[in-house]
Amino acid sequence: MKFEITILGSSSATPIFHRNPTSQILNVNEKLLMIDCGEGTQQQMLRFGIKYHKIDYIFISHLHGDHYFGLVGLISSMHLNGRKKPLYLFAPPQIQEILELQFKHSATVIKFPIEYYPIQNDKAETILETNDVSVETIILNHRIPTTGFLFKEKQRLRRINKEVVEKLNIPEEYYALIKKGIDFKDELGNIHKAIDLTTEADAPKSYAYCSDTVADGSYLKQLEEVDLLYHETTFMHDMVDRAKETFHTTSVEAAIIAKNCVVKKLMIGHFSARYRDLSPLLMEAKEIFPETYLAIEGETFMI
Amino acid sequence: MKFEITILGSSSATPIFHRNPTSQILNVNEKLLMIDCGEGTQQQMLRFGIKYHKIDYIFISHLHGDHYFGLVGLISSMHLNGRKKPLYLFAPPQIQEILELQFKHSATVIKFPIEYYPIQNDKAETILETNDVSVETIILNHRIPTTGFLFKEKQRLRRINKEVVEKLNIPEEYYALIKKGIDFKDELGNIHKAIDLTTEADAPKSYAYCSDTVADGSYLKQLEEVDLLYHETTFMHDMVDRAKETFHTTSVEAAIIAKNCVVKKLMIGHFSARYRDLSPLLMEAKEIFPETYLAIEGETFMI
Repeated sequence: MKFEITILGSSSATPIFHRNPTSQILNVNEKLLMIDCGEGTQQQMLRFGIKYHKIDYIFISHLHGDHYFGLVGLISSMHLNGRKKPLYLFAPPQIQEILELQFKHSATVIKFPIEYYPIQNDKAETILETNDVSVETIILNHRIPTTGFLFKEKQRLRRINKEVVEKLNIPEEYYALIKKGIDFKDELGNIHKAIDLTTEADAPKSYAYCSDTVADGSYLKQLEEVDLLYHETTFMHDMVDRAKETFHTTSVEAAIIAKNCVVKKLMIGHFSARYRDLSPLLMEAKEIFPETYLAIEGETFMI
Repeated sequence: MKFEITILGSSSATPIFHRNPTSQILNVNEKLLMIDCGEGTQQQMLRFGIKYHKIDYIFISHLHGDHYFGLVGLISSMHLNGRKKPLYLFAPPQIQEILELQFKHSATVIKFPIEYYPIQNDKAETILETNDVSVETIILNHRIPTTGFLFKEKQRLRRINKEVVEKLNIPEEYYALIKKGIDFKDELGNIHKAIDLTTEADAPKSYAYCSDTVADGSYLKQLEEVDLLYHETTFMHDMVDRAKETFHTTSVEAAIIAKNCVVKKLMIGHFSARYRDLSPLLMEAKEIFPETYLAIEGETFMI
């Protein structure tokens, strides 16, 4: 099952040095979930070949413009492209008023249902369960109500043991049933237990998205042992006072969180406009947590 | 005096084929006026090296998103870049509510004054007069209230007649006064009339911006003999029924307007997403009005 993240933007506040504001696409088994939607996100989708119609769920962390100014344009384009199926929008409650005001003044009636899920910011909760994934909010600590998101794959199906099933000449069309735990009865009436025809599934993966936040608070316990943690890293650590003042995180702080939470990998992003070259941020984080990567636009990370 | 237009976007409705939605920059004597501001305009400004702080006036033709969704992001970036001086915003009245709602929900207090000039859509009027330029609205005929803009240079100063002033040994520091019509008195007390020391000024130039509109109505008389007419050309002429239905214009209609209004040059833009290659639109218009040009992003037209 595919479980991978593509970066559409990683700039904080303003676009600069060809870096767009924040947006990411999580591909779960070929269904696309969008996380944040800064201005120009739809242009980035065109650039990287991501289709509008594959997105059914959008998650907005907070209402600073660099995380959602592209949303109204993306929804308008979905509308103009003839979308009919619902769009599920998990966002701060005020997003509905903001979008509807703009649709009203352009005399636009969006032709597909927008199902608003107003995110409550008082406690972490599960906001979505599909066959493939569950999504919990993570309560962050920023200047305005802000939530991160924890995406957990559902338990995967067991894997077919090729050697065994081929020896028994079990036709391929039965594989899907066997993976689901249904035993196979051969022509002679012999029962072959599904568990003997399969091997253990890969462990389900998890992805935590944390932007924007000061580097402390109750959210840390949700990050424990995640496969990939995306954590905002607006500043180098010499700017730690500025980071605290603006409720942001430094490269060192993000790396310490990754280490303390025993995550497998750390991806850093939301870079300040003061850094043209990002390698010093990466180096500073890697000194503490070697498995650190930069959120580079257009790159896809398998989780 | 500089009077030239730079194209930042020329796509209609949605960004496509690396074409951004509408925005243009009119450079009048090194002061920049922005006309429309589709999503991604600030990214285009970065790309083409246009500085935020040079813009004091923004004109928004109407509240379809492809003409203004980039405005809130641009204003936010001006704010984050420390702007202090006022921004004059000529736009439909509802823009104030739209912007202020978004600033409120991000807890942002913009640090510079935004002077809202709510455009009335019942009759054409002069909305701005500076030392260099006057701006009139043009009442267009679209699905929602829409205005074009007619920019007219002020009468330029007469030009110094180099041959004459050099023969008389008139010091250069007097040239600016002479251009303004002040006579020059030499050491012997002889008066040299400013009119004899100068030649006639270049005729003031004019630029008319018309987007979006169906190709008829009272606005046509304001376009007479303009130096450059930008007219939307969403469709080829085989789509004329669709153009009328959606209150847009075809290439043939734009060219006929240019011809009938005896404009010097025509620039076409606001191209539908159905046209990857724009040359057929250009050819169709040029057959009727040879001095037709495409609005290509990043290109600057001297008027």
